Amino acid sequence: MKINKVAIVGGTHGNVFTGTFLLRRWASNPSEITRESFITKPLWANPKAFYENKRYIDADLNRCFFRTDLNNEAIHTYEGNRAKVINAVLGPKENPAFDFTIDIHTTTSNMGVTLILVGGDKYDLRLAAFIKSHVPDVNLYYFKDQGGDHPYLTSVTPKRLGLEIGPIPQGVLRHDVFEQANDAIRLTLDYIHRVNVGDEPECDKEVEVFLHRNNLDFPVDADGNIYAMIHRNLQGKDFTELKKGDPMFITINGEVITYDEEAIAYPVFINEAAYYDKKIALSLTDKITMPL
Amino acid sequence: MKINKVAIVGGTHGNVFTGTFLLRRWASNPSEITRESFITKPLWANPKAFYENKRYIDADLNRCFFRTDLNNEAIHTYEGNRAKVINAVLGPKENPAFDFTIDIHTTTSNMGVTLILVGGDKYDLRLAAFIKSHVPDVNLYYFKDQGGDHPYLTSVTPKRLGLEIGPIPQGVLRHDVFEQANDAIRLTLDYIHRVNVGDEPECDKEVEVFLHRNNLDFPVDADGNIYAMIHRNLQGKDFTELKKGDPMFITINGEVITYDEEAIAYPVFINEAAYYDKKIALSLTDKITMPL
Repeated sequence: MKINKVAIVGGTHGNVFTGTFLLRRWASNPSEITRESFITKPLWANPKAFYENKRYIDADLNRCFFRTDLNNEAIHTYEGNRAKVINAVLGPKENPAFDFTIDIHTTTSNMGVTLILVGGDKYDLRLAAFIKSHVPDVNLYYFKDQGGDHPYLTSVTPKRLGLEIGPIPQGVLRHDVFEQANDAIRLTLDYIHRVNVGDEPECDKEVEVFLHRNNLDFPVDADGNIYAMIHRNLQGKDFTELKKGDPMFITINGEVITYDEEAIAYPVFINEAAYYDKKIALSLTDKITMPL
Repeated sequence: MKINKVAIVGGTHGNVFTGTFLLRRWASNPSEITRESFITKPLWANPKAFYENKRYIDADLNRCFFRTDLNNEAIHTYEGNRAKVINAVLGPKENPAFDFTIDIHTTTSNMGVTLILVGGDKYDLRLAAFIKSHVPDVNLYYFKDQGGDHPYLTSVTPKRLGLEIGPIPQGVLRHDVFEQANDAIRLTLDYIHRVNVGDEPECDKEVEVFLHRNNLDFPVDADGNIYAMIHRNLQGKDFTELKKGDPMFITINGEVITYDEEAIAYPVFINEAAYYDKKIALSLTDKITMPL
């Protein structure tokens, strides 16, 4: 598969500084993201939210890319407009100018370097396996493609890779996270180039992925207020086995709430700051192996 | 010294969840903060900022308590008004109804449990030493009292203790931090009670404190934009020796900037999210010993 145009998007969420500052680095060092076989375009997604140090101004930009919304002139939020601009530059979704989008995100959860795969064909899985072969503790977080349209920024182009790195607070730069993101992007561009020029890297026969199962909400009181926290035994244990009977929450009054399903789970996005407003406490995944 | 009324303040900054949720805990468990020899009043400082998940709405509430501002009716920001309300309840500063304020803060820096002492007499130092005798890794961060008025919330009452616990992202609850704060407050109330009833705990002859020296800004470019990060060797190394030649920053282009003073420093508030808008990267302290 020949990729001709790759977009690297940073600052989709304004309080995620890593992408914004990587874009500033590449502005002075464009050779780092240049490969002979394709054009690379860095794109700063939500400058206003960065300047206000907020995830978004009016609406989460990374949920603004449903086709119906992109084509609805009546949507006039800041991010609704911004999505249309990005769609005009990288897309339009119906007939996109760009082939591949890399979107840089960070998380307050202890997810290390996680590659987000939504659906994804052999190309995507082999790309992820290639990155993992160079950075062994990379995690692959896989969502089944349920068909239909997606609201995510990267849905503008036919191919995509979502980066999710943590733990890092919102509104903070960290040297280690900055370098992890830069390394993962370098490897992604290397892989695309090598496949482009017929030098596809060899890979194993299969790869371990964490398949999204469901989100779990925080316990709430009668007024709908969160009244429990992630239990200290679970804090930071993203991608680690969670078994029936393991503590999951502790209420503010000290009662422990355990995980009660028979099936072992691998939790992710544990205690992610951005999901408190939706009252999501964590997500559960199943560890599976997929052929390459 | 007899203390008759103690205020425990939470949520002075809206995106610091720990205090807000401790107040909710104590609403169901008031005995935890009740002691026979004084009245305890829990106070939720900035509810609106909590609901908007921001540090503040118009102005940092913890800088709104200068006497001239409290007495200036023309100041009509949300926090300016809120400061006047709090001053009316706990103060007024000129003749306060309350004797002691505990203010609960958290930080994205790796400061563990830090007690903030502004000036402070033997009572304050012995209280801090008492807490440290039960929680040995507690740090005492000491500011010389330069005289004059202070803008901090706790300046409303004659005595005070500031709690600063981390690392924790903004907009997140952590079980461990929640318990650390609860423990430090329990010990504070215990100490006040014991001194009140003539049962002052014995203490060592001296205590180690970190004396505030100065703040250090992030390097900025010609446009005033931050263009460097805390170097990975310094990240998380609060209260740890920093020597001449040690890496302090790394620019986004990869150049290392070292610490160049002869005097050994003990950095604190390294990479605190709330200080990015002031471009403060860290503060330096000197480790000294003070008599008790």
